[in-house]
Amino acid sequence: MSEKYQKFQDLTGELADLGHAQGLLGWDQETYMPPKGTPRRARSLGTLAGIYHEKLTATPFVELVAGLRDEDLEGDAQVNVSEVDREQGKALKIPKELVVELSETQSLAHEAWVEARQKADFAGFAPWLGKILKLQREVAERVGYEGSIYNALLDEYEPHARAEEIAPVFAGLRERLVPLVEKIAATGKYPARGVLDRDFPIDGQEEFGRRVMADMGFDLEAGRLDVAVHPFCSGIARDDVRLTTRYSADNLAGSVFGTIHETGHGLYEQGLPAEAQGLPVGQSVSLGIHESQSRMWENMVGRSRPFWKHYLPGLKEIFPEQLEGVELEAFYAAINQVEPSLIRVEADEVTYSLHILLRFELEKDLLEGKIDVEALPGLWNERMEQYLGIRPEDDAQGVLQDVHWSFGLIGYFPTYALGNLYAAQFFAQARQEMPDLLAQIEQGKLGGLKKWLNEKIHQSGKRLTAAELVEQVTGQPLSADFFSAYLEEKFGEVYGLSS
Amino acid sequence: MSEKYQKFQDLTGELADLGHAQGLLGWDQETYMPPKGTPRRARSLGTLAGIYHEKLTATPFVELVAGLRDEDLEGDAQVNVSEVDREQGKALKIPKELVVELSETQSLAHEAWVEARQKADFAGFAPWLGKILKLQREVAERVGYEGSIYNALLDEYEPHARAEEIAPVFAGLRERLVPLVEKIAATGKYPARGVLDRDFPIDGQEEFGRRVMADMGFDLEAGRLDVAVHPFCSGIARDDVRLTTRYSADNLAGSVFGTIHETGHGLYEQGLPAEAQGLPVGQSVSLGIHESQSRMWENMVGRSRPFWKHYLPGLKEIFPEQLEGVELEAFYAAINQVEPSLIRVEADEVTYSLHILLRFELEKDLLEGKIDVEALPGLWNERMEQYLGIRPEDDAQGVLQDVHWSFGLIGYFPTYALGNLYAAQFFAQARQEMPDLLAQIEQGKLGGLKKWLNEKIHQSGKRLTAAELVEQVTGQPLSADFFSAYLEEKFGEVYGLSS
Repeated sequence: MSEKYQKFQDLTGELADLGHAQGLLGWDQETYMPPKGTPRRARSLGTLAGIYHEKLTATPFVELVAGLRDEDLEGDAQVNVSEVDREQGKALKIPKELVVELSETQSLAHEAWVEARQKADFAGFAPWLGKILKLQREVAERVGYEGSIYNALLDEYEPHARAEEIAPVFAGLRERLVPLVEKIAATGKYPARGVLDRDFPIDGQEEFGRRVMADMGFDLEAGRLDVAVHPFCSGIARDDVRLTTRYSADNLAGSVFGTIHETGHGLYEQGLPAEAQGLPVGQSVSLGIHESQSRMWENMVGRSRPFWKHYLPGLKEIFPEQLEGVELEAFYAAINQVEPSLIRVEADEVTYSLHILLRFELEKDLLEGKIDVEALPGLWNERMEQYLGIRPEDDAQGVLQDVHWSFGLIGYFPTYALGNLYAAQFFAQARQEMPDLLAQIEQGKLGGLKKWLNEKIHQSGKRLTAAELVEQVTGQPLSADFFSAYLEEKFGEVYGLSS
Repeated sequence: MSEKYQKFQDLTGELADLGHAQGLLGWDQETYMPPKGTPRRARSLGTLAGIYHEKLTATPFVELVAGLRDEDLEGDAQVNVSEVDREQGKALKIPKELVVELSETQSLAHEAWVEARQKADFAGFAPWLGKILKLQREVAERVGYEGSIYNALLDEYEPHARAEEIAPVFAGLRERLVPLVEKIAATGKYPARGVLDRDFPIDGQEEFGRRVMADMGFDLEAGRLDVAVHPFCSGIARDDVRLTTRYSADNLAGSVFGTIHETGHGLYEQGLPAEAQGLPVGQSVSLGIHESQSRMWENMVGRSRPFWKHYLPGLKEIFPEQLEGVELEAFYAAINQVEPSLIRVEADEVTYSLHILLRFELEKDLLEGKIDVEALPGLWNERMEQYLGIRPEDDAQGVLQDVHWSFGLIGYFPTYALGNLYAAQFFAQARQEMPDLLAQIEQGKLGGLKKWLNEKIHQSGKRLTAAELVEQVTGQPLSADFFSAYLEEKFGEVYGLSS
């Protein structure tokens, strides 16, 4: 290894060490920090972010990266240098004043959003959203982009993705999901009502969640599970992965599927290439690929019949009274109830992606200047009716429901839907390569899928882009067909639809 | 405020923010970090320490401090600048190679110590201790000192203290403690045997500990209590104070007095001046003063008869079977059993300081070159017999028992004994100023003492040195008389000694 590249690794490792500290401070803030600790924590996080930026953009480091970029590096070294180069390039193009203005605007916009949502009054948030769009457009112009201005922001969450490629895939998905939702709604079946409408003591929920987590192969010597208001997974290090979940006695499904979901994220983090720790190659590909891991485990495995064929008896042992007389089929139907609803975070597997598509279309049009902020509530409600057949009664239940835009997160939403698409395409491939996969799951043997994901996806780290990874693993580019077909088959059967 | 001083505050605040992150990473390592997280955590902590050093010693900052030092600052500004100047001066005088060599040596010495202690073989550790002494002497020579070379190291833990002043105070203490221990041993009473020799379920121990913690006024909105193998208190911020304790069913006293002890530390951190957060004035005076707060609460309050007059009934409600028939006097005698023993961390209130004095005398003589490392085990055993009347059977029970020297901590031990002396002197003053203090405690009203400590000690921050603080609060310099008299009176009564 050249002396130059060694130096590059040292400096990049220093950034990773700062990221480690930022990760832990953030995790602690959501789990154990006492409430009055907030102001000093915010200061410390701000200082660490400033030092990170300072070190990333220090002239000797920039020159070192530029020098290495011009060498003909290969393999991991090439990826590492090119990823740091990308990050440096962006950081250098955005002046500090713009970063500060964005950060201050986000903070004020978030406050305004909280109040506006409380009053269900979009007008109180509209000027702030306008200002955020203006600043994010400025960021995009400075960072640069090809095609849609949206690409500049999307790249932050789904590197190398392009709106021009995503939009038609999403449109294809919409064309198959909208009629599926209509057909299901027309059956008038609501199988969940009654079956899970009991109190499930929290201790038992945790016991069960931890059992599944262990079966999935999450290494508790290299990670933890704690409780947080908004569950998340934070990969502080490959060998220090922090999952959080939440428990509520009246919501068994929430904790069970939440824990499985976060464990899916956690397995990805624990499966990243050990030899590349602290370097870009050792990181996950994108938010979309990350979400594919959580969704696959949560929905394709966790909400499947084979899974519950194995696990329902164990769950009934923990909750003998609550689940007395509940048979597999009733339970399976209950956890797969589809019902168009207004709130994204409460949406089921079928309707969820439509919530995302709507947001993607609107935020893209907003950023491109095709629609005005003022027109947003109307367009939102219209499209909700078009896609899901229901209409919010007020903006709190509509355009104001999500926190993301108030935090300046534009270009983030599509990664949720991409996750579903990647998941279905990967899972179809896994079933093809392991014909007995469902039989394994039916026996509670989850290690086969974990191993497959480790080898095919996790250990690749950031060596491939999301699009390249999909091609490599499945032999074809991203397509909505896998996810659409999966939903049509599964829910066609659950709801007895004619095909 | 001058622009220069504003800039100084900003840069000093940045250091505090880095310290905040280091504090949290350290706390997490002892509480929640999964075991495999160790290597990356060590890296991140190393990087943060490096950045801290880099920022502290950056030339523009050093010049800024030098410029401010030459201005005639007053009050808090003067203290802040002079403390940063001291820290900078030390950091600048120790070359990076020496820091690295020390750190590597400590790491290897610690490994050697673990093995040597296991084998009870001092010879395996002796060369490492020799190397540590050599390097610490080099540190001391570079930092500079007046009088004993020991002062250079002591200053790190007990700023501005001098061995020449401490040694005679400790000698005075020894002269009164040794005969007291002899008299107690001669009575042949062992009141603890039997009374606390039961199993106390951990839930109940925690409930009781938290009750006392709340009565002491620890603010759980600005702090936490968790479990760690080696209990400690970490003031991550004034409003984010992390205490830890440990529970063992066969050791009720361990958790009760451990929790009270750490809460004493915690009250100090929470009581530091809010207006000076992130600046030296907002920090504690010294380890000795810190220890005075924990020891006062643990021993002078927590092991007092008035305290248990109030709390024993509550403890008996939690443990009705275990404490059936245990009367106040038997319980009070049990928690105040004195018995010369070999291991410092298991020592009682009377013998504890003698363990410290022995270590202080030996490490000071070692550093000053008056004794050789090879002579250490013999001198240790001799002095144990002299002070406590007992002799270790092997070096694991003797000179190898403590971790400190293996970590390079020389000059640290005396702060433990100083804590006892400060505590007794402060407590005597508190009783004088609040004649009904013991009556308050007897009613479970602990807020009066807390308020007194807040006003007299905590809110002073680092404005005064330990010596100045003792003078200001008690009207006289540090003396061993208060602690000696306190022990003679208390244990004279417990053991029925003729005075």
